[in-house]
Amino acid sequence: MGDSGTSPESTPRDPGRRRLLRGGAALGAALVTGAARPGSSQGPPAPADPSKVLGRHMVPYTERSRFEQAVKAKGPPTMPDEWGGNFTPLGESLGTITPSSLFYEVNRSGVPDIDPSRHRLLIHGMVDRPVVLTVDEIKRLPSVSRTYFLECSGNTQTEWGAPTAPTVQWTHGLTSCAEWTGVPLSLLLREAGVQKGAIWILAEGADGSGNERSLPMRKAMDDILVAYGQNGEALRPENGYPLRLVVPGWEGNVNVKWLRRLTVTDRPYMTRIESMDHTALMPNGKARHLMFVMDAKSVITFPSGGQRLPGPGFYEITGLAWSGRGRVRRVDVSTDGGKTWRAANLQEPILPFAHTRFRFPWRWGGEETLFQSRCVDETGYVQPTLAALVKVRGLNSTYHNNAIQTWKVAADGSVHNARA
Amino acid sequence: MGDSGTSPESTPRDPGRRRLLRGGAALGAALVTGAARPGSSQGPPAPADPSKVLGRHMVPYTERSRFEQAVKAKGPPTMPDEWGGNFTPLGESLGTITPSSLFYEVNRSGVPDIDPSRHRLLIHGMVDRPVVLTVDEIKRLPSVSRTYFLECSGNTQTEWGAPTAPTVQWTHGLTSCAEWTGVPLSLLLREAGVQKGAIWILAEGADGSGNERSLPMRKAMDDILVAYGQNGEALRPENGYPLRLVVPGWEGNVNVKWLRRLTVTDRPYMTRIESMDHTALMPNGKARHLMFVMDAKSVITFPSGGQRLPGPGFYEITGLAWSGRGRVRRVDVSTDGGKTWRAANLQEPILPFAHTRFRFPWRWGGEETLFQSRCVDETGYVQPTLAALVKVRGLNSTYHNNAIQTWKVAADGSVHNARA
Repeated sequence: MGDSGTSPESTPRDPGRRRLLRGGAALGAALVTGAARPGSSQGPPAPADPSKVLGRHMVPYTERSRFEQAVKAKGPPTMPDEWGGNFTPLGESLGTITPSSLFYEVNRSGVPDIDPSRHRLLIHGMVDRPVVLTVDEIKRLPSVSRTYFLECSGNTQTEWGAPTAPTVQWTHGLTSCAEWTGVPLSLLLREAGVQKGAIWILAEGADGSGNERSLPMRKAMDDILVAYGQNGEALRPENGYPLRLVVPGWEGNVNVKWLRRLTVTDRPYMTRIESMDHTALMPNGKARHLMFVMDAKSVITFPSGGQRLPGPGFYEITGLAWSGRGRVRRVDVSTDGGKTWRAANLQEPILPFAHTRFRFPWRWGGEETLFQSRCVDETGYVQPTLAALVKVRGLNSTYHNNAIQTWKVAADGSVHNARA
Repeated sequence: MGDSGTSPESTPRDPGRRRLLRGGAALGAALVTGAARPGSSQGPPAPADPSKVLGRHMVPYTERSRFEQAVKAKGPPTMPDEWGGNFTPLGESLGTITPSSLFYEVNRSGVPDIDPSRHRLLIHGMVDRPVVLTVDEIKRLPSVSRTYFLECSGNTQTEWGAPTAPTVQWTHGLTSCAEWTGVPLSLLLREAGVQKGAIWILAEGADGSGNERSLPMRKAMDDILVAYGQNGEALRPENGYPLRLVVPGWEGNVNVKWLRRLTVTDRPYMTRIESMDHTALMPNGKARHLMFVMDAKSVITFPSGGQRLPGPGFYEITGLAWSGRGRVRRVDVSTDGGKTWRAANLQEPILPFAHTRFRFPWRWGGEETLFQSRCVDETGYVQPTLAALVKVRGLNSTYHNNAIQTWKVAADGSVHNARA
């Protein structure tokens, strides 16, 4: 069959390096500790040897292990559970895809219950052929699948002053990444026939929050999707079921969920959500608005706040990087609070407007250590320090904090939000 | 901010083509039909206008919409629910990622309940440093994330003779695709120190089925993963939690789930599962065994058996293609039962050993139509017709049926498994 092996290739490429694993007696001692630690789940203990008992029968729709407990966290706690953010547990993230059950969400009137057979998308305004479309009609059209991050522009808003949030879930958990499937918005607009002078659109969601956002026609004709699929199945209700905009690289709020109306216009509408909110008061007293692009950003997810290193030895530092201007070109990691930097390994393929996983091998000697990561995107933009960002923006901005994050590993292995 | 639009770009690139959408009065008529079709879910009807009511509060771990009902299907029905295949509903698939809840599975002793804190991986045999590893120790090691398909070699086994299975779920549902995260097996083997002459490994799972498979060291040192992550979170129990092998491009059964032992050896073990099973009786009376590689294959998922086209008009034909020898180079689609072929659009990025989504625009006039798809991989291998495959393999093979599939659209829009 041609598949049998020929040579063992068992010689390490760098025979002089220290081994990552401890074998024999040393490992035996480590295992005693490991075996004493109980599982975290409810219910009866798992069988000591699962090969000696019949397993569970198959089910039509499978769930995660009872031993896996990572969940989203709702904030701020002062607001009702229909309003605010639901933060992705990035500290437990693996790879680049965010499981749809853990995909972050921001809602202002809860999650609407929408019957897809009754949902409609209206496209009207400055068009030659106004149209009302069913979800099934949209699904028949030429489609594409694209992997894109989303990030709420309010992500990391607690970190403008002193280090505040205890974990990466709370500092950076309002970003996630999925494979979206849908119809290019340009196709729908061309079918409707955009009239001369119509250089903006207004997108409206079907929830009770009155979410209406203005978007320039140029972006609409470039890469915006009207998406119905997320990670291989229908959008989750929390993420816009049955239809949403996906606006690559632009702030989360303009990726209008539960999309029901597109009005083609000649100007931005300056709706409540884009004038009373989603603006930035600058040091000169003027406010910036329509701040669409999410600038390059990164964060180390391991080790990060609230985690603990069990002891000195080898670790793989890992995290996520992304840019609203395209691809990540490079991620630098510092283990000395930003004095020196070395390039991390980037997981291929590096996709535009997508989370990119970076990894950095590291051996901990037990000393206090300040970790940072810094994203450089394909335009050459370098993720700024907080000091540099504040110098330009001042301290009245809530939104678009993409500053470098610092995590401190203390001598006892505990990890904390810190400043370098 | 530099983000405002400038020109409407509203002119279609091909003004002469027929529009995909019908506007105005014609669409209004279509909507009457659409509005009369009820949603498929249990429970009270969704609000007529969801923007007029407060939505549901946020929850820590979100589920799909109650209106989405696609599920896996267990077969064969003659066997207990701990034994057999659980088929992915490919007819509803979108994009390239299979949701972990719908990822196919084949089990022979049910799904074991494994506490990850008590699970161990033993690496022994012809190695210098036998080692027992905890899951946490493995997670500390240098990791990679890769998107790979899996396919049971028994996929499509009902189709060697007359067209049999009614849907693409039953003909092809024993393949799925995920982003896997884990440690290269080569790293673990190098740490253990593979001895001279050790050119095979034997992998053993922790379930009750005694699943043990032999794999050549050459593949182990190339690209096999010891995976703990699937689509951004831990493996699902059905897919090997907490550890499994992922063997890019090779038949599903060697991707040993619930991995607990790797024995380094100088020969294949010829275990029960790879000698009594997973072999092919050839026309000359001899049996092929250790048939690892999954040859190039594709299938149209829409329109496919059991679906129905509501009427003449535009449709996007779509499906999945994959190859155990690397990347998909091209997918051809025929709408005349294989007489003529045209190249489909392939979704980028085209990743090696991964499902590749293909799409093909088509306008149905209402006539009976025979659809086929044909995958060509980067080695130049062309997916064969069933006749060509049977000519080589005979009709005593259960496994590795990668023949071209035909779907017939009848004049009433119903779609059926057929022969060209």
